[in-house]
Amino acid sequence: MLSKATIKYINSLQLKKFRQQYNKFTAEGHKIVIEVLKNAEIIPDKIFCTKEWAEDNRSLLKKYAAKVVIVTYNELKKISALQTPNHVLVVLSRFNHEPNQTIVQNDLSLVLETIQDPGNFGTILRTADWFGIQHIFCSRDCVDLYNSKVIQASMGAFLRVKVIYDDLSSIIEKNENIPVYGAMLGGQNLFKMKIAPKGLIVIGNEGKGISKKTEELLTHQIEIPSNGKTESLNAAIATAIICAVFRNS
Amino acid sequence: MLSKATIKYINSLQLKKFRQQYNKFTAEGHKIVIEVLKNAEIIPDKIFCTKEWAEDNRSLLKKYAAKVVIVTYNELKKISALQTPNHVLVVLSRFNHEPNQTIVQNDLSLVLETIQDPGNFGTILRTADWFGIQHIFCSRDCVDLYNSKVIQASMGAFLRVKVIYDDLSSIIEKNENIPVYGAMLGGQNLFKMKIAPKGLIVIGNEGKGISKKTEELLTHQIEIPSNGKTESLNAAIATAIICAVFRNS
Repeated sequence: MLSKATIKYINSLQLKKFRQQYNKFTAEGHKIVIEVLKNAEIIPDKIFCTKEWAEDNRSLLKKYAAKVVIVTYNELKKISALQTPNHVLVVLSRFNHEPNQTIVQNDLSLVLETIQDPGNFGTILRTADWFGIQHIFCSRDCVDLYNSKVIQASMGAFLRVKVIYDDLSSIIEKNENIPVYGAMLGGQNLFKMKIAPKGLIVIGNEGKGISKKTEELLTHQIEIPSNGKTESLNAAIATAIICAVFRNS
Repeated sequence: MLSKATIKYINSLQLKKFRQQYNKFTAEGHKIVIEVLKNAEIIPDKIFCTKEWAEDNRSLLKKYAAKVVIVTYNELKKISALQTPNHVLVVLSRFNHEPNQTIVQNDLSLVLETIQDPGNFGTILRTADWFGIQHIFCSRDCVDLYNSKVIQASMGAFLRVKVIYDDLSSIIEKNENIPVYGAMLGGQNLFKMKIAPKGLIVIGNEGKGISKKTEELLTHQIEIPSNGKTESLNAAIATAIICAVFRNS
């Protein structure tokens, strides 16, 4: 049985303020939790699951026996951020990622400026993971990685891709020898330009695009050519098309 | 002032059953409504807006004076499907699109099988519009085009792209002379195959992909090559990458 204090604590992790205060966050659902349990580098803080789920996944839970809390489905509903909770929720410690500068200098990384929509950010994480991109740098005003909608939309990619919040100018200054591409209307046609296999790809805010200040730091402006009449592409969609072309040129 | 009956009627349009019964749907927000009002082919049924919005857009509203209902922001909240309503909501008649077979036979079209997530479908519409794709065929169990989340995520693309619900097998049979591409794990590398400038591109369900039955109707299986460890791409992301490559090969 869950105490009121536990329910209150888990629900508080829906707010960034408390995620920072406790240095914890939640992740839910069979697929994501299985990935967490199989990941040797991640030690869950608590695992709340139904009796059936615990029985079905006994071997994976073995080494975490002291951390498992069996709950009813109705209790799970009280701590879940999902409309229809799955049978398991884990509490994890927030990461403390440092970039691997050798990889950043020799591979592609993403730089997100003021990305606000958690679904977009989670999808960008999932896409980066698909294309083997290991670092995502975020301006400090991007949506929080540990927002439950980001975690769920990332489909487990939050376990593999390093997300680092910093000032964009200092990120770009630290990597002054590699190209800095920015997705912008009026840039060079993505499909006709010469593409380096390394560099930073900057994606701007959903409504406003890349800021003037960041635009000045770009070495290349790129555009996804349009054949229609719509004004813009969704930010996660633009990111995916650019990553796909960079990885396959 | 809005009557209780009007509030009930507009809210009922959040359900597919009532959208079909009344043959109406709603669209919201400044950007989308401006597109509606500028579109000569679309005649709104009703326009609910605040006094300020009506004043700011007086010239566009002129020809629809008899259809404008001035409401307070609090009244708008009672009929809006958005968490934070914008200042305007229109009621529109559902479309009755017929495919233009000459275009379908000579251009690219999308075929969606059991796409369930309204955000994904809206984003696919917006992306199709960007790439000038004029037809999207949907299996009858795809999410409803007129779902308010689809309309909002499409950013006005629902006004330009024709969406036709039908049995997938009959759609494909009607177009037996053009290639039928399907996005599938294990298919040919999208970046290394010869691509025709016309045909149908089939995108499968978010969780299950393309069904066995539809797989048999494909003439080409295509795969977006991965460099990472994640299992899959989001359906709207996969659609966008494929459209981008087809339009720029």
